[in-house]
Amino acid sequence: MSAEDRLIARFFAPLATDPGALGLSDDAAFVTPPQGCDLVLKTDAIIGGVHFFADDAADLVARKALRVNLSDLAAKGAKPLGFLLSLALPKDTGEDWLTAFARGLRADAELFGCPLFGGDTDRTPGPITVSIAMFGSVPDGRMVRRAGARPGDRIFVSGTIGDAAFGLALRRGADWRLSAAQRDHLAERYLLPQPRNALAEAVRLHASAAMDVSDGLAGDLAKLARVSGVAARVEAAQVPLSDAARAVLAAEPGLIETALSGGDDYEVVCTVPPGQVEAFRSAAKAAAVTVTDIGEISRGAGTSFLGGDGKSLAFKQASFSHF
Amino acid sequence: MSAEDRLIARFFAPLATDPGALGLSDDAAFVTPPQGCDLVLKTDAIIGGVHFFADDAADLVARKALRVNLSDLAAKGAKPLGFLLSLALPKDTGEDWLTAFARGLRADAELFGCPLFGGDTDRTPGPITVSIAMFGSVPDGRMVRRAGARPGDRIFVSGTIGDAAFGLALRRGADWRLSAAQRDHLAERYLLPQPRNALAEAVRLHASAAMDVSDGLAGDLAKLARVSGVAARVEAAQVPLSDAARAVLAAEPGLIETALSGGDDYEVVCTVPPGQVEAFRSAAKAAAVTVTDIGEISRGAGTSFLGGDGKSLAFKQASFSHF
Repeated sequence: MSAEDRLIARFFAPLATDPGALGLSDDAAFVTPPQGCDLVLKTDAIIGGVHFFADDAADLVARKALRVNLSDLAAKGAKPLGFLLSLALPKDTGEDWLTAFARGLRADAELFGCPLFGGDTDRTPGPITVSIAMFGSVPDGRMVRRAGARPGDRIFVSGTIGDAAFGLALRRGADWRLSAAQRDHLAERYLLPQPRNALAEAVRLHASAAMDVSDGLAGDLAKLARVSGVAARVEAAQVPLSDAARAVLAAEPGLIETALSGGDDYEVVCTVPPGQVEAFRSAAKAAAVTVTDIGEISRGAGTSFLGGDGKSLAFKQASFSHF
Repeated sequence: MSAEDRLIARFFAPLATDPGALGLSDDAAFVTPPQGCDLVLKTDAIIGGVHFFADDAADLVARKALRVNLSDLAAKGAKPLGFLLSLALPKDTGEDWLTAFARGLRADAELFGCPLFGGDTDRTPGPITVSIAMFGSVPDGRMVRRAGARPGDRIFVSGTIGDAAFGLALRRGADWRLSAAQRDHLAERYLLPQPRNALAEAVRLHASAAMDVSDGLAGDLAKLARVSGVAARVEAAQVPLSDAARAVLAAEPGLIETALSGGDDYEVVCTVPPGQVEAFRSAAKAAAVTVTDIGEISRGAGTSFLGGDGKSLAFKQASFSHF
C-alpha cells in the first residue's frame, strides 16, 4: 500500500458511508440520482492564508470547506447527496492535523447528510488547499436560480449579516471594546459558517430567485438583480444584525459598509413573490431559520441600500473578493 | 464586476456550453441524468512542480488536468457528461497563460464531449493547482469496478506501457541516444495523456474488472487483484511497448522496472472472462484502440510479472507515488 493509500484508508474511508463510494477502494464512485431529480453541482476551494488562517483548527478548516459548498446548495433549493474532496497538503502536515481534519469532515458529513464519495490527496509545495465538489438533488428543472426575480417581489435574507466580516476584522486586530460574548459570537461566525440548508425547501417552493451571500450582501444582491434584469432596493435599517454587530456599529457607524459588503456571511438572499410571502415565512419558521424582509424588487436596474434619510448609501466596494 | 467575475466571463464562460451550466452566471449548475443511468464521479488534481513542470505550456496543463480524470471514466465504462474546475493561481499568472489554458481546456472539452459546468478561481501563494471534478454516466449499476476479476479471466491492457515514465526521465536529463522521433514520442506521452474513452463501451460490455493505469501497471494491477481477491500473473514479454520504449530497454535493460512501475500511462487494464475475449477484441478493434492480452487471473493472492526464464521479476517499488 502506498503512503497515499494508507492515508485514505485510515482517515477518509470511514467517511465514505454510501455504497456508491465503494469504500474509496475504486477509481471512481457512482450515485443513482433520485427518481425525477436533477443533480445540482458546485465546487469551491479554500486555501490556507487566503480563506483561512494557517493556525485555524483543522476540524474547523474541514467544516468550513464543506459548509461554503453546502451554503450554495441551500440557496439553490437542493438537498445534499455527497461530495468529492481534493486535498493538497504541505510535506510537514502531521497526523494530528489529519486526524482533526477528518474528524471535522465526518461531523459535518453526518450533520448535513452528505457523505464522502471520493477524493484525491497530493503533496504541495504551497499552502493547504481544500477543494470540495458537492452534489445535491432537486426535482427536475426546479433548481432555484439567480435569474428569476420579478418587479414587486420582496427581498428576504436569512440569519444576520456582517458578523463574519467583523469577526475577520477582530482576527486582524480590530478592537471595539466588545464584551467577551460579543467577540466570541463574531469570531465564531467567521470561523464556522452556518449554512441554511434547513431553508432549502422553503426557498425551492416559494422563492423566485436566490443565491447564497458569500461575497457581501450588496455585491451578491447586485449580481442577482443584474442577471434577473431588475432593480433591487433595500432598506438598510431592515438588514438583520446581531447584537454584537450592532455594538460594533455603535462604536464605529461607518462600518455599515463592511457589514453590507464584507464577505463570508453564508446566508441566503432570495426574492419572494407577494403571494408567496406568508407561505415562505411559515415554511422558514417551521425550519427554525429566521428570515427578514429587507426590501423590494422593481423594474429597472441597479441595487441601492437606502439609509434612514431615504438617501442611497454609497459604497467604495460593493463586494469582497479574495481574488 | 469583480476581477474574478471578469476572468470567468472572458476565459471560462465560453466553455460552459451545456444549458445546465447557466453560462456560469449562477452559484451552481444542474444536470439531468440520462434516464436509467447512474452518475460516475471522479476528482483528481494536478499541481505545478509536482504533476507538471512550471514551464509546461498552459494549454497542455489544462488538457492533462482533464485527461487524467477522463482516463478514470474510460476505465469505469462511463461516458463523460461534464466537469467542474477549481483553479488556484499565483498572483503573477498572466493573461497569456490564462488564454492558452482556456484554449486547451476548450479543445479537450469539445474533443471528449465534456463541457464545463462550473468552477471556482482563487489566488494562491503556492503553485498553480488545477483540480477537476468530473462526472459521467453508465446504465444503472453497471459501473465497471476494480473488484470483479475471476480466476481464468484474461488480463488486457490498452496502448503501450512505460512511455510516460521514460518521457519524464528524459525531461529530467536521461539520455539513451534515441532518435529525435523516439524522444518526441516519449516526451509527448508524458506531456499529454491519451485517455482511452473510445474503449469505455467495450470495457463496460465485456470486462469483469477494470481500472486506469496511472501509478504504474504493476502497482495498479496489484490493487485490482487485491480488491478482487485473486492473483494476477503477467508475462512481462507480452506487455505492449512502443518502439521508443524498446529502444530505451535495449540501451538499459534494467529499466523494465521503470516501464512496469512508473506512472502516468493513462491506459486501461482490465480483466475479461474467457467467453468474452473475442467480443472484447472486436469491440476494441471497432473503437480503434489496441488491446493486448498480457496474462491471467488465478485463485490465490499476489501479482507477479514473469520474465522470459519463467521467474518472477522483483521490483523495488511496485507503484509510483507523488505523495
